[in-house]
Amino acid sequence: MVTWTLTEKKLNANQLWKNESLYSLGNGYIGVRGNFEEGYEHDMPSVRGTYMNAFHDVVDIPYGEKLYGFPTTQQTLLPIIDCQTVQIYLGDEMERFSLFTGEIMHYERTLHLDRGCITRKVHWKSPLGKEIIVSFHRLVSMITKECFVIHVELEPVNFLGNVKIFSSASISRQGASTVDTSDPRVSAHVSKLHTEEIVHQDDMHLIIAKTTQSNLKTACAVRHEINTVYYKEITTLEDELISTFQFTLSKPVTVTKKCIYTDTLRHGDTFVDTAIQLQHDIMEFNIEALQQQQHIYFDHFWSMADIKIKGDSKLQQGIRFNIYHLLQSIGRDPYSHIAAKGLSGIGYEGHYFWDTEIYMFPFFLMTHPQMAESIIRYRYHTLEQAKERAKEMGHGQGALYPWRTISGTECSSFFPAGTAQYHISADIAYSVIQYYLASYNQSFMVQYGAEILFETARLWMDVGHYYNGKFRIDGVTGPDEYTCIVNNNYYTNVMAKYNLMWAAKVYDQLLSSHGEALKTLCEKLHVEEKEVQQWRDVADNMYLPYNEQLGINPQDDTFLNKAIWDFESTSKEKYPLLLHYHPLTLYRYQVCKQADTVLAHFLVEDESDTETMKRTFDYYETITTHDSSLSYSIFSIMAAKLREPDKAYDYFMETARLDIDDLHHNTKDGLHLANMGGTWMSIVYGFAGLRLKESGISLAPLLPRKWQGFEFYFQYKDRKIQIEVTKTEMVLTLMEGDALPILVYDEQYVLQCHNPTTINTQT
Amino acid sequence: MVTWTLTEKKLNANQLWKNESLYSLGNGYIGVRGNFEEGYEHDMPSVRGTYMNAFHDVVDIPYGEKLYGFPTTQQTLLPIIDCQTVQIYLGDEMERFSLFTGEIMHYERTLHLDRGCITRKVHWKSPLGKEIIVSFHRLVSMITKECFVIHVELEPVNFLGNVKIFSSASISRQGASTVDTSDPRVSAHVSKLHTEEIVHQDDMHLIIAKTTQSNLKTACAVRHEINTVYYKEITTLEDELISTFQFTLSKPVTVTKKCIYTDTLRHGDTFVDTAIQLQHDIMEFNIEALQQQQHIYFDHFWSMADIKIKGDSKLQQGIRFNIYHLLQSIGRDPYSHIAAKGLSGIGYEGHYFWDTEIYMFPFFLMTHPQMAESIIRYRYHTLEQAKERAKEMGHGQGALYPWRTISGTECSSFFPAGTAQYHISADIAYSVIQYYLASYNQSFMVQYGAEILFETARLWMDVGHYYNGKFRIDGVTGPDEYTCIVNNNYYTNVMAKYNLMWAAKVYDQLLSSHGEALKTLCEKLHVEEKEVQQWRDVADNMYLPYNEQLGINPQDDTFLNKAIWDFESTSKEKYPLLLHYHPLTLYRYQVCKQADTVLAHFLVEDESDTETMKRTFDYYETITTHDSSLSYSIFSIMAAKLREPDKAYDYFMETARLDIDDLHHNTKDGLHLANMGGTWMSIVYGFAGLRLKESGISLAPLLPRKWQGFEFYFQYKDRKIQIEVTKTEMVLTLMEGDALPILVYDEQYVLQCHNPTTINTQT
Repeated sequence: MVTWTLTEKKLNANQLWKNESLYSLGNGYIGVRGNFEEGYEHDMPSVRGTYMNAFHDVVDIPYGEKLYGFPTTQQTLLPIIDCQTVQIYLGDEMERFSLFTGEIMHYERTLHLDRGCITRKVHWKSPLGKEIIVSFHRLVSMITKECFVIHVELEPVNFLGNVKIFSSASISRQGASTVDTSDPRVSAHVSKLHTEEIVHQDDMHLIIAKTTQSNLKTACAVRHEINTVYYKEITTLEDELISTFQFTLSKPVTVTKKCIYTDTLRHGDTFVDTAIQLQHDIMEFNIEALQQQQHIYFDHFWSMADIKIKGDSKLQQGIRFNIYHLLQSIGRDPYSHIAAKGLSGIGYEGHYFWDTEIYMFPFFLMTHPQMAESIIRYRYHTLEQAKERAKEMGHGQGALYPWRTISGTECSSFFPAGTAQYHISADIAYSVIQYYLASYNQSFMVQYGAEILFETARLWMDVGHYYNGKFRIDGVTGPDEYTCIVNNNYYTNVMAKYNLMWAAKVYDQLLSSHGEALKTLCEKLHVEEKEVQQWRDVADNMYLPYNEQLGINPQDDTFLNKAIWDFESTSKEKYPLLLHYHPLTLYRYQVCKQADTVLAHFLVEDESDTETMKRTFDYYETITTHDSSLSYSIFSIMAAKLREPDKAYDYFMETARLDIDDLHHNTKDGLHLANMGGTWMSIVYGFAGLRLKESGISLAPLLPRKWQGFEFYFQYKDRKIQIEVTKTEMVLTLMEGDALPILVYDEQYVLQCHNPTTINTQT
Repeated sequence: MVTWTLTEKKLNANQLWKNESLYSLGNGYIGVRGNFEEGYEHDMPSVRGTYMNAFHDVVDIPYGEKLYGFPTTQQTLLPIIDCQTVQIYLGDEMERFSLFTGEIMHYERTLHLDRGCITRKVHWKSPLGKEIIVSFHRLVSMITKECFVIHVELEPVNFLGNVKIFSSASISRQGASTVDTSDPRVSAHVSKLHTEEIVHQDDMHLIIAKTTQSNLKTACAVRHEINTVYYKEITTLEDELISTFQFTLSKPVTVTKKCIYTDTLRHGDTFVDTAIQLQHDIMEFNIEALQQQQHIYFDHFWSMADIKIKGDSKLQQGIRFNIYHLLQSIGRDPYSHIAAKGLSGIGYEGHYFWDTEIYMFPFFLMTHPQMAESIIRYRYHTLEQAKERAKEMGHGQGALYPWRTISGTECSSFFPAGTAQYHISADIAYSVIQYYLASYNQSFMVQYGAEILFETARLWMDVGHYYNGKFRIDGVTGPDEYTCIVNNNYYTNVMAKYNLMWAAKVYDQLLSSHGEALKTLCEKLHVEEKEVQQWRDVADNMYLPYNEQLGINPQDDTFLNKAIWDFESTSKEKYPLLLHYHPLTLYRYQVCKQADTVLAHFLVEDESDTETMKRTFDYYETITTHDSSLSYSIFSIMAAKLREPDKAYDYFMETARLDIDDLHHNTKDGLHLANMGGTWMSIVYGFAGLRLKESGISLAPLLPRKWQGFEFYFQYKDRKIQIEVTKTEMVLTLMEGDALPILVYDEQYVLQCHNPTTINTQT
């Protein structure tokens, strides 16, 4: 089924690099780019890489002029030991199997979204006429997170004879040549692992490697299983271990390469023993068994995660592709999060940004809330560092989360569009609140969430100040990076208000439900009722800029006074503007990289009336370039909210296949995970109009004209709900859990388990 | 006379580093720090350096995140070949003369401000009891700009016998250990010259060296003259040439080391021949003759440059010291300007900033206008690069001068407090206008000045925009670096207005006086009358922020809305704030590093009424930290204008001896040249109230209570005028030139040559 796969049937050397991202596999712990096992020809653009979430080195940040508080070092995701390479040589002539020599009689590579694996089948004729069929099957296990397997099958066509296979495990050389230093969105730092030890144990080989600065170590244990008689040799180079297998091909032969990755961050001092043990444990599973486990996992995953679109199979494919990669990217331990590019590439150096909370978190929250909890746990785990950073930034209290980080300290070296984006602290708080609204899991809150809410609330108290009776926040940058360091960014202020309000509310609610635990927490943090009252007061008096003349919320205090960017004279090649204009030029004009006030209206819609939102949307729409992949989905959601189905649809269509169709021309550096989350949100928050509020859950579906209907699932307070929207009606089915009141188009319904509620949508 | 000297009679090892700056010698072309010829002991903090104005290397600028338009390379002043070392060894024991071993019986070092030289006399007893008197006399010639001479006299006391002298010429190793990377005000880059060739010709030795990147070369030719019989040896090391002289000390012996420096920037391809020729030329001059030339030069210089203060000799000394160093620092060719630290040290990497025009230029303009012309010529010389930079910064037209530079391209890597300070283009225009007002030299204007005015005017037309009928300038930074990237910085707007107005005026005036030349210029630049009319219109409609409630000019659109810095809780050690707070923290508050709006009121006083200026002064006074050395002088001048003599005096006293008394604790890195110019301005523009306007020249003297009187000279439109202010009156004497109308306290007088005008000042 095309909608459950991504398939290429023709090989295009120009697409290799990009396809390495599209065909990457991962499980939140390890990620493997979709490189060809047999390699490429010399000089073909490619980044060969295996990554481990949060496994980083520390590198110095250089500055021409370094000012106080600029971070001196940063973390950078480090490629780990790469096991993808399996080279095949045929005959006494040692003809190397390569898709770029000889003749390809048949080629097909498929990413199976429903089964979590990639298969590749090549019917190849060598330059000297040897014909074989080579099939690859690879998977990164969702069950054993340390496990990556490549299964190769060689099937003779006209060739029978000697085959030699070189299978290597090598420390990736992150080619400096592939780093475009003129593109600030790509990795700027090149670091490398160092081999510490190579161990051979029976038929298992193990490389232990360490980073240069961060003191992290990783082990990779490799074992091969071959279903024929073979002769084996091992070659050990400085950064590479090569296993050579020689056998006679007379009938189909399979080679299964099982790789286990561990590291000191997750496995501690026993990381080597663990690798050996796990390698031992998976001995009993052949590729079919591993694939079977994987399939079961994915069946379960899709049972809640899937979105069905009726009437557009390309779109259906795009949505499933995006959801699939979200799952592949999410770290599920306190050390890791979701990187901007997931585990598919080194763009943005494997850093975690605000996008995780605002763009990706909702998908997990509503479909697999345990995973959403792990996103919050990561932030909880780095809370102390955020408090330290707040101090360093001159604040007497509070937590300032870093703009980009892996291990919790600030890695942004350009503060106007980095550290100055204080909103990230409110964004993280927002995700905690959303979690609370979806789960009402108060014990999780008292254990993790409340502390984040309280400390971020404290930050706002220290950053802002009263002026003419209103609480104002000066000198910050909102989400739109084409306008930096401003006073009273609407987004920041409204999100800070929400943060403060909910810090106080959660305090109140836990006080009655978890009084003792809250008391302990408050004693630890020195939170007193008086302080909570101040949060309430400031939330009540937060200044939210509004322009009477235009009837819109200005992005900040002076945004509307500036000249509007001359879009007419800006040729297409000048986009994205950030690659063609100095930041000062951009700051000087009304021009937005992405949704900012419009995003605020989506996230905290009750702070504005619909008319204001409509005018604001119309205003910013004309001056937003969508140079960030975080923009279209939000415009789509707000267009849906404002009942503009065609517009919502058009914006949505920019997001759904952004990577598959490489619309931003940089998919090679990794996938746009936030946009992938945005696609999900565009459907669920946009076309279905789902909202989570204190008052409960609500829907306001709007079907794009080109669709026959759509269908999705979500979880809410221990219930599972199915939503089906057709041309004429919406059917809500409570699949699991107690009866649930729900608002649809502002009208209340009560869902009963297994008793579908049908609502006419033709109003 | 103490007021004509700077003398130290006690040696303090802790003061060495700082004193190297105070006792530096220079002539605008070369500069030599005041290092001891005989050297120091190991590990004593010191920067040994000889510099050549504008002689730089090019180094890469590193960035953690590099955005469009960030300069990729910058220039950095490179220490050239240092000839200061003359080591003296006594007796067969080879006891090294050192002020840090043995016993100092007498020590005295004097900088002679009236003669342009340094003498140092040491009566020393070696650890083994050898006594001699060693006298040093060094000068950097004002007549032969390439020439630096050290004259050493050895006088036996109880020691007679073998003396060995090691005299070296070596490429300075700019110790990375002396670079404090945590202080953004110090050089961040370390580069080094490379020896290209060493040539011996008779008794002359020559080192030719080149830079790594910038392709500049310099030659240093050294000759020694010794008035006794000696044995000589030459040692050539990679980066050093050592001449060893051995002789018997039985009577006083003198060693004169004559050094000639040339470079390809100034002497072109013949720089080696020129060095040899000049070395030959000065053979006929012994130290007395060279000193005599120097003395004559300084007599002439001081005849216009001196300021006499009656009643405070320490202050008198401070002022002369400052004026002296201004002269030593000014480059007098199109390649060089005045660096922030002159030629006294490597602070700010030898870069030229706006301070030259706004703080140093006035002194030269009013006392030695030919030197002022050379400041303008340098900017004219780099005008094309400024036009290129404007383009790179997204402007369709105009010239944007770099914030810091040597050869004309932007060297600032932190744009919020660098490139964003667009006002530098207006500051340069301002200096041109001031030159015009003081000279009415229209042929210089048509040749150099007008083009600068026109191209800077064009910049403002492109940067700003009309909004509600007023012309506004968004997204720039004013002089106060504690508030960056703002809209409608009052200083910038008022200076841009002045720039535009005068571009149009100069156009009009040259049209009638130099029509043909102007026509040629305008054809070259495509300037048409229509465009000039637009300059006038924009000048007329420039928006100048004014706050009705406070009756002051706000620093920018949002400055007054911000919270006021908590000065009470800021301990003394936290100053300068920039070394203890992240820029974002500073940007978030009303706190000024230096005069900004107050400076604008001084420079363009006719745009405000006195009451507004008074209220504005009072307002900013409470929130200005004077963390920049550019601040006190301006507050002094404005306090004098506002008739607050005590306040003017107190501010002034912070400037006059800033370096001598090391008030900013960083004199070691070089002298604060802008502050030195500010001292002169504080007296002439402050206490004497001198102003240059289209309507003519005016004075409004105000004598500080602690002074008996003061006296100074200035030139104006080919006249020389002497001003003497006493407790009761002011005497104006036209020393040279035609009768001159002059305003004093708004009343008009006409000065007649050699006919003093006495005005009662006790109003």
